[in-house]
Amino acid sequence: MTEFELIERYFDWGEGIGDDCALIEVDAHQQLVATVDTLIEGVHFPKETNAHDIAYKALAVNLSDLSAMGATPLYFTLALTLPAMNEKWLQDFSCTLKTLAQTYNIRLVGGDTTKGALSITINATGVVKCQALMRSGAKVGDSIFVSNTIGDAALAWQQMQVQEIPSIDLLKQFNRPEPQVKLGQSLLGVANSCIDISDGLQQDLSHILTRSKVGATINVDALPLSNEVTQHINNTDDWCIALAGGDDYELCFTVSKAQLDSIQSIEKELGIVLTKIGMITNGQGLIIKGLNETCQSYRHF
Amino acid sequence: MTEFELIERYFDWGEGIGDDCALIEVDAHQQLVATVDTLIEGVHFPKETNAHDIAYKALAVNLSDLSAMGATPLYFTLALTLPAMNEKWLQDFSCTLKTLAQTYNIRLVGGDTTKGALSITINATGVVKCQALMRSGAKVGDSIFVSNTIGDAALAWQQMQVQEIPSIDLLKQFNRPEPQVKLGQSLLGVANSCIDISDGLQQDLSHILTRSKVGATINVDALPLSNEVTQHINNTDDWCIALAGGDDYELCFTVSKAQLDSIQSIEKELGIVLTKIGMITNGQGLIIKGLNETCQSYRHF
Repeated sequence: MTEFELIERYFDWGEGIGDDCALIEVDAHQQLVATVDTLIEGVHFPKETNAHDIAYKALAVNLSDLSAMGATPLYFTLALTLPAMNEKWLQDFSCTLKTLAQTYNIRLVGGDTTKGALSITINATGVVKCQALMRSGAKVGDSIFVSNTIGDAALAWQQMQVQEIPSIDLLKQFNRPEPQVKLGQSLLGVANSCIDISDGLQQDLSHILTRSKVGATINVDALPLSNEVTQHINNTDDWCIALAGGDDYELCFTVSKAQLDSIQSIEKELGIVLTKIGMITNGQGLIIKGLNETCQSYRHF
Repeated sequence: MTEFELIERYFDWGEGIGDDCALIEVDAHQQLVATVDTLIEGVHFPKETNAHDIAYKALAVNLSDLSAMGATPLYFTLALTLPAMNEKWLQDFSCTLKTLAQTYNIRLVGGDTTKGALSITINATGVVKCQALMRSGAKVGDSIFVSNTIGDAALAWQQMQVQEIPSIDLLKQFNRPEPQVKLGQSLLGVANSCIDISDGLQQDLSHILTRSKVGATINVDALPLSNEVTQHINNTDDWCIALAGGDDYELCFTVSKAQLDSIQSIEKELGIVLTKIGMITNGQGLIIKGLNETCQSYRHF
């Protein structure tokens, strides 16, 4: 099969793929927001992961990056490296990719397919009308929030590494994380700073602190945890699964006192849980109360 | 080394990498032009290729796609997969990447680094003010042109496969192809259709014919060839190296009779050779005069 036939069969969703590049119209007075993420078999997902789950996560992690800026998804490109032509795999992959793309109204505009170890790189672009959410805006006195629960995906991954089968809930968080696109958009003009915590809360919150030149104190007892993660921590005292496990596609953001009411409204409107875990201080670095050890953050090498 | 440290050390060229996404301002009344290309060790370049050449080619092939649309380069993202942390390699890679980016005035706005088999995916975005060059605009009676010479990179690759060392000229075309960005821009409003012939002239010109619903006749004797490729064909009668070898980052474009004078002006202004190789006809498909065989086009799988 030529690349041309492959694209036509699986990725031409009637949106005009065909020239050397894609053409995209952008309205005036908008800022583009661009991000890229690669998923590699054996590194980001186990070898036995099905094509549906791989497609979902490859796009979802990029949508999560867009959400952290408060952006509205616009378009994406797909660079797909496959060990061999596998029509069933491609059918499954493109089916779920298309469904998720339609859910978030993001258009596939181009791609490249190559032969090699299984790897998926998606480049997603969104737009922001006014001021995007940034890592650099946290102010002393801000409350620090995290969306939903954390540590679930990391616990699933840990269990899979020792051949345990995670529960359906944990697996869902690992394979099908919900990008917080609506939350990000709702936080525009409300939050002072925001980040997605895909590398783990500890490391990613530290990026906010560095960029904003502030400190923070958080309390482990305040962390929003699922029952399974709570149980795991009770058994092992392993708080690091929640603080540094990574693969949490939730948002961590900071909010001034004046905006706390807005947070309650957003919670109600979106039907999600936003938990205050600490405060921005005029100190240096991140103080984690209740933690007796140091967590090793996710390292890419 | 964390990804953050890696980016700071090698890829933060003072242009503000740091949030979950990059922010890019776009002027009103412009169209975005987006493309993505992956290079994989062993597939697109031999294992012994140095980091400088890999960086150059990874960006150049994307600039070539932008050139085929007549676009002005704007920004790119880099997804880099490395088998291990190698500081010397990263230093070399980032050095040449930066130099080439500055030459073409394209800004690195973001990236992702992962551990795995060596692979580089670059996503490049450009802008076009008015009508971009497309594959679909060829008209019956158009002359078909190709820039510079073709077949050189494919001959270099063929020689490397059998452990021969290609000449400096051939290696340059293989490792350091010059993207025809200025040519593409000059062809705006002049050419009726355009494509880059990275998959080989035969296959890529056929894309123009399909999209434009026209036929074409070209003559092998008219193909612009270097002395080395000419000699190779004289010895082997292997025209396919020029027609289907691939890896030619030249432009193939079609021009109406009324615009032929403009082509001469562009040749002079840019100091490049543009060769007429045939005509667009009202027939079907591509007729290649002087070719006694069928060339197998590049297949991605």
